[in-house]
Amino acid sequence: MSDNQPLMSIEAMNARIHRSPFNRWLGLEAIAATATDVVIRVNWREEMGGSPDTGAAHGGVLAAIVDATASYTVAAAIGRIGPTLDMRVDFHKSAKPGNITATGRLIKMGRSIASVDVTLCDVDGKLISSGRVVFFVQQNS
Amino acid sequence: MSDNQPLMSIEAMNARIHRSPFNRWLGLEAIAATATDVVIRVNWREEMGGSPDTGAAHGGVLAAIVDATASYTVAAAIGRIGPTLDMRVDFHKSAKPGNITATGRLIKMGRSIASVDVTLCDVDGKLISSGRVVFFVQQNS
Amino acid sequence: MSDNQPLMSIEAMNARIHRSPFNRWLGLEAIAATATDVVIRVNWREEMGGSPDTGAAHGGVLAAIVDATASYTVAAAIGRIGPTLDMRVDFHKSAKPGNITATGRLIKMGRSIASVDVTLCDVDGKLISSGRVVFFVQQNS
Amino acid sequence: MSDNQPLMSIEAMNARIHRSPFNRWLGLEAIAATATDVVIRVNWREEMGGSPDTGAAHGGVLAAIVDATASYTVAAAIGRIGPTLDMRVDFHKSAKPGNITATGRLIKMGRSIASVDVTLCDVDGKLISSGRVVFFVQQNS
Repeated sequence: MSDNQPLMSIEAMNARIHRSPFNRWLGLEAIAATATDVVIRVNWREEMGGSPDTGAAHGGVLAAIVDATASYTVAAAIGRIGPTLDMRVDFHKSAKPGNITATGRLIKMGRSIASVDVTLCDVDGKLISSGRVVFFVQQNS
Repeated sequence: MSDNQPLMSIEAMNARIHRSPFNRWLGLEAIAATATDVVIRVNWREEMGGSPDTGAAHGGVLAAIVDATASYTVAAAIGRIGPTLDMRVDFHKSAKPGNITATGRLIKMGRSIASVDVTLCDVDGKLISSGRVVFFVQQNS
Repeated sequence: MSDNQPLMSIEAMNARIHRSPFNRWLGLEAIAATATDVVIRVNWREEMGGSPDTGAAHGGVLAAIVDATASYTVAAAIGRIGPTLDMRVDFHKSAKPGNITATGRLIKMGRSIASVDVTLCDVDGKLISSGRVVFFVQQNS
Repeated sequence: MSDNQPLMSIEAMNARIHRSPFNRWLGLEAIAATATDVVIRVNWREEMGGSPDTGAAHGGVLAAIVDATASYTVAAAIGRIGPTLDMRVDFHKSAKPGNITATGRLIKMGRSIASVDVTLCDVDGKLISSGRVVFFVQQNS
């Protein structure tokens, strides 16, 4: 078994997603994971639309996907999840309705703090959003 | 009529909220507005929970509320909404299940860019999150 | 003595500023402090200019002032300084050459994490920048 | 000549750095550039220290390096520089005194907005900071 195996399996991630009410609502599905990278597919639902006119995804939905994907990237790295301290999201282009692919990448795992980058692509593979999320991961805290 | 009247009325905000699928799902309800400040009540629903254990609000739901509240603060200031460029959210404490009160305050309205601060309080009036959201508000762009 | 007295005095802040090479270079001078708010005056020097053409302050200088002011706001609140975890700075308008007034305000002091907002005004009292800085303040860590 | 050539040459970058008072003070030196990536060497000077005790780099100096490196990444992409709208910086570990290598990478060049990621490494090649910087790049604005 490679050193690059995630400390939480894809199956365990998906089981955990289904126990979290909002992650389940988001239709998240972990599809690939290493110890530092996670790919999550988001199954589109109409209530995710923000604009009454274009049906484009609500920025808040994209932010939520960034947060959730980053959480599971931490889980892949250390086998558990800590509270989110803060996050930044950049909206690069309007996200047309349809499934979204979210990719999380661990930037730094410290003793107390973990930093994760996330990118979101639309059904055409175009970059729509990117974000940085910071977690408190200290054990026994 | 005071100079401090919002350029989008509370009624118009709520009508617009109801036309946006995700804002409607979030149960947002504008309850007060001036030209620079907006207060929005968020009606709790169980699917907003993040943690399977505590039922505490999902960070992504809080981020979405920050984004939406900031949008309506821009609407109050200039009567229309522009695309979100980026946002930052800080999570100060776990948000226990229950209605949330979101307050947006205009920090700067430039020719092209608007900056808004948002704070979220839980049912006990405790600060749970705060955020900064930046919009592109240039006309004819 | 009021409960609102800072836990680090203005004199102690200024002594500490003078021992930090870059804070001394920045010409920082604490001029007011309570347990939650600090005001720092920044004495302009020509090397702070960014643009070759206008001499306007370099954005990095403004970011540095935001970071330093936030540090001393934490010092006022708890009598010591912890490492900065992350910061966000918004640049609202070009900062013309001249002294800057920086105001820090404590947003949240948690057991492990402190959050501070900072605003910067130019010699005319106009808002030029604002920022959020997050510190790790856990004792014995 | 490859399509990946920068639109501002390394020589032009260094000439411009020397005309900007604070960039010159920072001792920046562009050493590599393509149309999307720029590497800048920062020559350490003692006034860059933050801590009176360890001499570690001041967080504000690191933030300034992030801002400047991102600017030159925009310059490499479009041949000119626009105003910084906002930035985020994460401090991953204490930056020991010594030269710093800064790498900027263009994430998205839009019609109005450019987004750049920057990473800073210390003399040992260890990641010390990373950041995201957003610029207004609209022509004729």
